[in-house]
Amino acid sequence: MEARNLLRFLFLSLISVAAFVLVLTFLQLSYQLPRTVELLDCATNSAWRASRNPCNHALDTPHHPLDPLTIREFEKVRSILSSHELFESSSYALHSVDLEEPEKTLVLKWKKGETLLPRKASVVARVDSKSVYVLTVDLGTGNLTVRETGEHSGYPMLTVEDVTGTTLALFASADFNRTIVQRGIDLADLACLPISTGWYGKSEENRRLIKVQCYSMDGTANFYMRPIEGLTFLLDLDTKQVVEISDTGRNIPIPKAADTDYRYSVLQEDPHAMKPLNPISIEQPKGPSFTVEDKYLVKWANWEFHLKPDARAGVIVSLAKFRDPDTGELRDVMYKGFSSELFVPYMDPTDAWYFKTYLDAGEYGFGLQAMPLDPLNDCPRNAYYMDGVFAAADGTPYVRPNMICVFESYAGDIGWRHSESPITGMEIREVRPKVTLMVRMVASVGNYDYIVDWDFQTDGLIRVKVGLSGMLMVKGTTYDNINQIPNQENLHGTLLSENVIGVIHDHYISFYLDMDIDGSENSFVNVNIKRQQTSPGESPRKSYLEAIRNVAKTEKDAQIKLKLYDPSEFHVINPSKKTRVGNPAGYKIVPGATAASLLDLEDPPQIRAAFTNNQIWVTPYNQSEQWAAGMFVYQSHGEDTLATRSDRDRAIENKDIVLWYTLGFHHIPCQEDFPIMPTVSSSFQLKPVNFFERNPILRSPPNLEKDLPVCKPVASV
Amino acid sequence: MEARNLLRFLFLSLISVAAFVLVLTFLQLSYQLPRTVELLDCATNSAWRASRNPCNHALDTPHHPLDPLTIREFEKVRSILSSHELFESSSYALHSVDLEEPEKTLVLKWKKGETLLPRKASVVARVDSKSVYVLTVDLGTGNLTVRETGEHSGYPMLTVEDVTGTTLALFASADFNRTIVQRGIDLADLACLPISTGWYGKSEENRRLIKVQCYSMDGTANFYMRPIEGLTFLLDLDTKQVVEISDTGRNIPIPKAADTDYRYSVLQEDPHAMKPLNPISIEQPKGPSFTVEDKYLVKWANWEFHLKPDARAGVIVSLAKFRDPDTGELRDVMYKGFSSELFVPYMDPTDAWYFKTYLDAGEYGFGLQAMPLDPLNDCPRNAYYMDGVFAAADGTPYVRPNMICVFESYAGDIGWRHSESPITGMEIREVRPKVTLMVRMVASVGNYDYIVDWDFQTDGLIRVKVGLSGMLMVKGTTYDNINQIPNQENLHGTLLSENVIGVIHDHYISFYLDMDIDGSENSFVNVNIKRQQTSPGESPRKSYLEAIRNVAKTEKDAQIKLKLYDPSEFHVINPSKKTRVGNPAGYKIVPGATAASLLDLEDPPQIRAAFTNNQIWVTPYNQSEQWAAGMFVYQSHGEDTLATRSDRDRAIENKDIVLWYTLGFHHIPCQEDFPIMPTVSSSFQLKPVNFFERNPILRSPPNLEKDLPVCKPVASV
Repeated sequence: MEARNLLRFLFLSLISVAAFVLVLTFLQLSYQLPRTVELLDCATNSAWRASRNPCNHALDTPHHPLDPLTIREFEKVRSILSSHELFESSSYALHSVDLEEPEKTLVLKWKKGETLLPRKASVVARVDSKSVYVLTVDLGTGNLTVRETGEHSGYPMLTVEDVTGTTLALFASADFNRTIVQRGIDLADLACLPISTGWYGKSEENRRLIKVQCYSMDGTANFYMRPIEGLTFLLDLDTKQVVEISDTGRNIPIPKAADTDYRYSVLQEDPHAMKPLNPISIEQPKGPSFTVEDKYLVKWANWEFHLKPDARAGVIVSLAKFRDPDTGELRDVMYKGFSSELFVPYMDPTDAWYFKTYLDAGEYGFGLQAMPLDPLNDCPRNAYYMDGVFAAADGTPYVRPNMICVFESYAGDIGWRHSESPITGMEIREVRPKVTLMVRMVASVGNYDYIVDWDFQTDGLIRVKVGLSGMLMVKGTTYDNINQIPNQENLHGTLLSENVIGVIHDHYISFYLDMDIDGSENSFVNVNIKRQQTSPGESPRKSYLEAIRNVAKTEKDAQIKLKLYDPSEFHVINPSKKTRVGNPAGYKIVPGATAASLLDLEDPPQIRAAFTNNQIWVTPYNQSEQWAAGMFVYQSHGEDTLATRSDRDRAIENKDIVLWYTLGFHHIPCQEDFPIMPTVSSSFQLKPVNFFERNPILRSPPNLEKDLPVCKPVASV
Repeated sequence: MEARNLLRFLFLSLISVAAFVLVLTFLQLSYQLPRTVELLDCATNSAWRASRNPCNHALDTPHHPLDPLTIREFEKVRSILSSHELFESSSYALHSVDLEEPEKTLVLKWKKGETLLPRKASVVARVDSKSVYVLTVDLGTGNLTVRETGEHSGYPMLTVEDVTGTTLALFASADFNRTIVQRGIDLADLACLPISTGWYGKSEENRRLIKVQCYSMDGTANFYMRPIEGLTFLLDLDTKQVVEISDTGRNIPIPKAADTDYRYSVLQEDPHAMKPLNPISIEQPKGPSFTVEDKYLVKWANWEFHLKPDARAGVIVSLAKFRDPDTGELRDVMYKGFSSELFVPYMDPTDAWYFKTYLDAGEYGFGLQAMPLDPLNDCPRNAYYMDGVFAAADGTPYVRPNMICVFESYAGDIGWRHSESPITGMEIREVRPKVTLMVRMVASVGNYDYIVDWDFQTDGLIRVKVGLSGMLMVKGTTYDNINQIPNQENLHGTLLSENVIGVIHDHYISFYLDMDIDGSENSFVNVNIKRQQTSPGESPRKSYLEAIRNVAKTEKDAQIKLKLYDPSEFHVINPSKKTRVGNPAGYKIVPGATAASLLDLEDPPQIRAAFTNNQIWVTPYNQSEQWAAGMFVYQSHGEDTLATRSDRDRAIENKDIVLWYTLGFHHIPCQEDFPIMPTVSSSFQLKPVNFFERNPILRSPPNLEKDLPVCKPVASV
């Protein structure tokens, strides 16, 4: 760090509200927030950009009712708010500023070429560090209305200023400085992470709190592997006071820096550096087969969908439609799909760890953590990039460049095939390659990197895949070998290196999937696979399996725990749209490998993340019910989750319904995860089931040699 | 079919023992087996070959103790057998001729450059349609020894001659001809599939039987969609007599041919033909990064393994080793891995369907069904191909060209990554692309195509993926719409098109995985994830998860049913090989989506396929225990399966052990599966767990623009 001798803070800015935001601390107490103009200027972000898109969004205009707010619209919101009486004489912070999507029925009716529906912004504002308002700002009329939100325990997502303010307060605290010095840490080497406190009872009520833990970055960029164990600072986010210091790990050494750095610039000189493989890439010399119209409307093969970045959800896919190859008709599949919430509980009940039970989307904003993608490594060379535009706490817009990429992928897989035996005289060997369209975002939520892929396939299937990489959250320990550990002691994880424990944890990511199969009136069918015994004399067989269709009448019929020995298919169907032979048109959700939360249902984090109580839920559509852990998640008590809503047991048959699926991972760390983790991933699918009359890629062509490119190594050109 | 008016049989040859072998029948009763020389000659197979490999294998010599038998060795076996007294004056059939692999300890000791271990062949022969012998033929000494096999109920795999003989017998039968004519079928349009009978009691004992069902190929190459329903011929494989004709479906029409063909030559003129996507391919202008030494030894990145085709298993991966990036040491991972058996039970207990409970590998030979791969569509352009050499029933060798492909795959995925917030001053965005080495085989077992991928990754992970495509096995019905079906009637499947039911069925594929983690003495550890409740006052948390390690002492400890709500990791470890901080070196098996057999445990097919009673088993290594449903599977009673062996409950701790994993699919057909199925796939992983001291791909380089190729569309060159 060339700047480590400068005595200054380097400050969290509007560009980055990294969860567990990294606060790089230097000793001089001066800082400056970047000016807005810089945030909109490509040049200042040059290291973070690919060359493909012009990044000046100042003149953007919306084209579609679902297009996100433009920079001019953000500015208009800011100007309307600042002149409103609610904010006139008060200090306030905007915790979110987003498009307020028009009513679903209006969006469904709207057609390209028609006047755009009235543009509105939805704003969550806190005034005077007390009252929370949810506001609708009409961008046409300038009207501002306060929405009734009822009682709620939680607070809105953290703002950047919440975090920066906390950090300033922390470094201004004599107690903090004394404690760090007592631990023998050079303040120049300090990196601190703010951590949401969760809710465990009275002490987390009626005030906004945050915990901070620190790391040493002496000798490595990977400070995550060098925890100052057992040292936790509790701060009040509004009074900026250090409320409590817990310092229980003084005997625990800070793990060594050696072998923790992961940067190519450091490792390429390593004697063990890997011999690179010969160059390999996905090539499309005639260019991609997809188009992006009006910035957000993606068209590829038979698919068409609206794609946009979102501060809280990350990526939102809307109005996904598929052109039926038999009829040419553009058919509704999904009105809206996105990752609604995450839950990441760590499995250590001790003082410095018990509260680590993150709800990343609602606490930090999943989209806000999505850093610019690396154009040759996060996505292949043939990718297209989409920028995000978000607002800071004072309403100022800024651009997050290259936040989403879209590309066609070909891994050498097979779409369908059949060979006949040549001797039959039928020389049949028909094979079709499988090419898919990938939409990718990566959220770097502090230490963890979540890769979220929406993979659209030519056969109508959508595969949603979540990959986990980045760094483990590790715990310091006095042990440097397992043989030192007393038999009864519970490490709560795996010893990964000398003095480093990778703590056991889970990841859950819950997807909101508003399926509209040929329209909004749909039903959820549990197609249960059951063993039937034959009657004596009926058959030489004793048993066989039968598929029994159960249509869910109310929400509780659709609270599903997956069971290997009591399996089902899960269909969303349109009961009034039948195929030629009479099957209802549908899509099924096909789970892949997953994990279920095993925490006590009455444990506070499990109550708050009760959307993980089942893998599948189905709710009636309600525009206000989009967040699996509730609208206000920070320090929430869990009274407004998917579980509490679903327990109302509303009717869901032949109605506009929303399917929810939660993908889970248990993670027992292993040494291969140190110092940075190879990607682990899992997925689920949304798959047509009697949606088409027949295989929709029956008539797709094979690869032919004459169409494939001619490629040369760069050096030879 | 240009030949459809010729009155002749077109015969099953030595090239193809397709399971449910397609017998294209024409009315003239003459046929000719291809001459051996043609089978070894590239020219006669030209339509089925890529251009890469010279296909003349006549001069091949073995280089490694595990190399398969060469053509010269096959010929030597044949000559030794034909002059032996056992065969001198008898008719005989060779049901398999394979390398008899040397003892594992000898193979492990052998080093390149040393004299090859004595070459032996293992032969299964039936003499005079009665006695079955398992013979060891010493290719050096010419000695032939008869191996003791004990009592067994089943018969060896079908030979080509079994099937061709059956078919001849069938067409010679007046009853058969009369029945077909009574059904109003033109014999010129007939295609018949021989189907293993299974075992259901006395009537399938003491004689070898086969059932045959027929289809109409009038108007389509996809005769599978045109069943002549309810017509089953039972034949004795040895006496060649038609034992029984069951004709119960006379009222059921043969489904229409329209819209069933899938050949590009037919469909490219279709008005609904798909607009092709722009060309896309995986390009490696500097060539692949792997080498294949001595025909069978593959080296790529840090991997090294022996790869070979096998008549019964398909693909065998042996001696898989990984060069540790820290030490440079080549470390054992797996001694041998292959698909040991399949089980495909159909879920219809009625007369024409109950017996369809295939054990494809043991009944038909999974490798024998692997047709040549399509060089631009089964595998990408950068693939390398490997041929198989097998023996016919008289011992004559023949070549199956392009049976396996090997290629590097890059789908745009991410090996590992991390971004820091740019504002920290640490401009970190480190991302590594994920390139893997794929080994692929596709077995076309009659209607179904099984794509088996062994995917080797740079981080030491092996992913085994099974894809299913091809055609459904369908049932004729009088219904052409669901609304005609009485409420109580069980279709046993889905109405897919007029008069076509896709019958519900399962697929199981069981993998033999002889893991050798740093040597052969290993243990199996069930790392159980259990909820722990905190004591009152211990923590604000009520619960957390703990990982509890249970080392399996005996086989029954390792009979595992997967449970979402009682999850475990499953490690194979070397208890005497520890990492620096003391973790035992291991690999874990990571299941993906799977299905469990729900059939009655006492149902005959389930008894025979009892390896599907659990998802995971661990057995002590025993060279004679490689087949999950037993050595002799055809009409077996299930007395020699993985389950019966495992129930002996032998010691498995710190021993040479074999891990077994069974991957399952429930398949409720849907209209998208008609007339040919988009590929459905699932996978499992073998993943290092504390095998390495740290992330083994930490020091891999990113993609750099300067290394990537320059590609042009073909037309522009």
